[in-house]
Amino acid sequence: VKYPIIQAGMAGGVTTPKLVAAVSNEGGLGSIGAGYMDAAQLRRHIQEVKKLTKNPFAVNLFTPPVYDASKDKIEKTNSRLQPFRDHLHISETTKIDKLTDSLFLEQIEVIFEEEVSICSFTFGIPSVEIIQRLKSRDIILIGTATTVEEAIANENNDMDMVVMQGSEAGGHRGSFIKPFEDSMIGTMALVPQASDVVTIPVIAAGGIAEGRGLVAALVLGAQAVQMGTAFVTSLESGVIDAYKEAIVNSHEDQTVVTSVFSGKPARGIQNEFISKMMDYEDELPEYPLQNSLTKSIRSEAAKQNITEWMSLWCGQSPRLTKRQSARQTMLELITQVEGLVKRS
Amino acid sequence: VKYPIIQAGMAGGVTTPKLVAAVSNEGGLGSIGAGYMDAAQLRRHIQEVKKLTKNPFAVNLFTPPVYDASKDKIEKTNSRLQPFRDHLHISETTKIDKLTDSLFLEQIEVIFEEEVSICSFTFGIPSVEIIQRLKSRDIILIGTATTVEEAIANENNDMDMVVMQGSEAGGHRGSFIKPFEDSMIGTMALVPQASDVVTIPVIAAGGIAEGRGLVAALVLGAQAVQMGTAFVTSLESGVIDAYKEAIVNSHEDQTVVTSVFSGKPARGIQNEFISKMMDYEDELPEYPLQNSLTKSIRSEAAKQNITEWMSLWCGQSPRLTKRQSARQTMLELITQVEGLVKRS
Repeated sequence: VKYPIIQAGMAGGVTTPKLVAAVSNEGGLGSIGAGYMDAAQLRRHIQEVKKLTKNPFAVNLFTPPVYDASKDKIEKTNSRLQPFRDHLHISETTKIDKLTDSLFLEQIEVIFEEEVSICSFTFGIPSVEIIQRLKSRDIILIGTATTVEEAIANENNDMDMVVMQGSEAGGHRGSFIKPFEDSMIGTMALVPQASDVVTIPVIAAGGIAEGRGLVAALVLGAQAVQMGTAFVTSLESGVIDAYKEAIVNSHEDQTVVTSVFSGKPARGIQNEFISKMMDYEDELPEYPLQNSLTKSIRSEAAKQNITEWMSLWCGQSPRLTKRQSARQTMLELITQVEGLVKRS
Repeated sequence: VKYPIIQAGMAGGVTTPKLVAAVSNEGGLGSIGAGYMDAAQLRRHIQEVKKLTKNPFAVNLFTPPVYDASKDKIEKTNSRLQPFRDHLHISETTKIDKLTDSLFLEQIEVIFEEEVSICSFTFGIPSVEIIQRLKSRDIILIGTATTVEEAIANENNDMDMVVMQGSEAGGHRGSFIKPFEDSMIGTMALVPQASDVVTIPVIAAGGIAEGRGLVAALVLGAQAVQMGTAFVTSLESGVIDAYKEAIVNSHEDQTVVTSVFSGKPARGIQNEFISKMMDYEDELPEYPLQNSLTKSIRSEAAKQNITEWMSLWCGQSPRLTKRQSARQTMLELITQVEGLVKRS
């Protein structure tokens, strides 16, 4: 990997093989957001990326959740979601997806079979056994942390690198030790404090969308940056045009952190679905149950171009994003960095 | 001013004349935190600083608040605070301080009489009339903003520079357009987006406590940085030792933003007073009323070394702070910056 730029492994169809390959082809590290994929989907994605690039790429997985399946919460929320389904003419019954140890183990098998060389994790650290199996095949492991304590846990559990996810970051919070409210640390504060404590390389994430943020992160002690929102708006990303348009037209003060879509806190653009559901935030079933309950609404809303009912994950730097190819974003990043280094 | 380093004008006795002068003497810009001072106190502080330095320094003022004095809220909160007062043996009756237009006008007169050359503001933008009077005397005006929209308002109202206060910052939030919850933007995201939109110089604040943050902020587009917490722990700062000790022993995930001390959201180290009062946060009288109600508790707790009942304002980078002279902090900053620039 030539440049210290990682395209975040965003799940839910953002990271098309074309996007991943474009970033890797330009010397960054593309990542397949495989959190919700079954074995067949993951295999297909990996094989397509391999056709499009000879360079390394990563697969991002969700560490399996432990959750309480309260029937009461599911039923209550289901009835609150029914008006959305009716309006969208969704007739099929809602299925609760398995997002369990067995899915995770299937994904890991695909990683082995397809000889993926880099694997990143969100929502906590996998079991010792899984880590040992991955490491025995020399797979590079990248963890995620939102506090210094979580960074230490990643280091102690043999992660090779750790993404420090600042509070600015779009999408799901990776917090796994303290509640997320206690783990909303700005990137400017998080990166130097983590770099001082852990010895594994730190990757800065959150609010970084172009060359200034990249250089600033390296100055703060990071060895690389991870960018998400900047690639959601790329031509190659898998989301609908209206979502990309919503990001480039948003301001830094128009995102919120909410659990209403998935049961887990995530940062996205404030919209009607959030406004309507946020009063019930404390009564939602946990992730991944809530994610299953809202799935048909989100995908049907996307089909019907109703961004007000979609999860529009977005970080706090939407003003810095552009609708252009990932290749163009990479080229601009590199040019900007060269300019900034020359200036100093 | 030789170096682009501003010591934040922290009110409540942090910014002793010695601290302000030490920063200015080393080529930074010291600031008197005059928000709560009456005319006599402010005059004395300015005169003492002038004795200790020939270099420029600033005075920070609070733009006068508009507030609703609900008698019911005052009485309810007063009774909830009584147990703290009893425990601390506070016998005098609580007085509601005036923190009004007339105090602000008195402070402005002192600024004129003492020929202060730089004046900064928190909690909004002063009236057109005040701004014109200050500008007619060539006083440099520095505003505070927490969103790009607020930065634009500062520029449109003739501020010469604007401090962009990121969500990491310790002490009071300067938000004055949207509710503070919508204005918690990380420094990494806030600075480049503001720099792109306003033409006046941007000063970065929030999470910056040493050379890495300073250089990173300049890379992001700031012309200078403002640091608060890093100077609270200085030998010259006016707070008690136990408070300084609490900061240097804190972690990045141990601060919260709370209104329980003053009626206005501010970031400080989580402690018992916050835990006990936070359930009533929605029922508190507004700033500055709540500030008056808790004043004797905070000052008596400081006298008795009970940090659990004090407001321990602190940003999200406490691990980067040191107990040393402000001069030493300034020297280290400059050395670090030179090292970082050489390395690049």
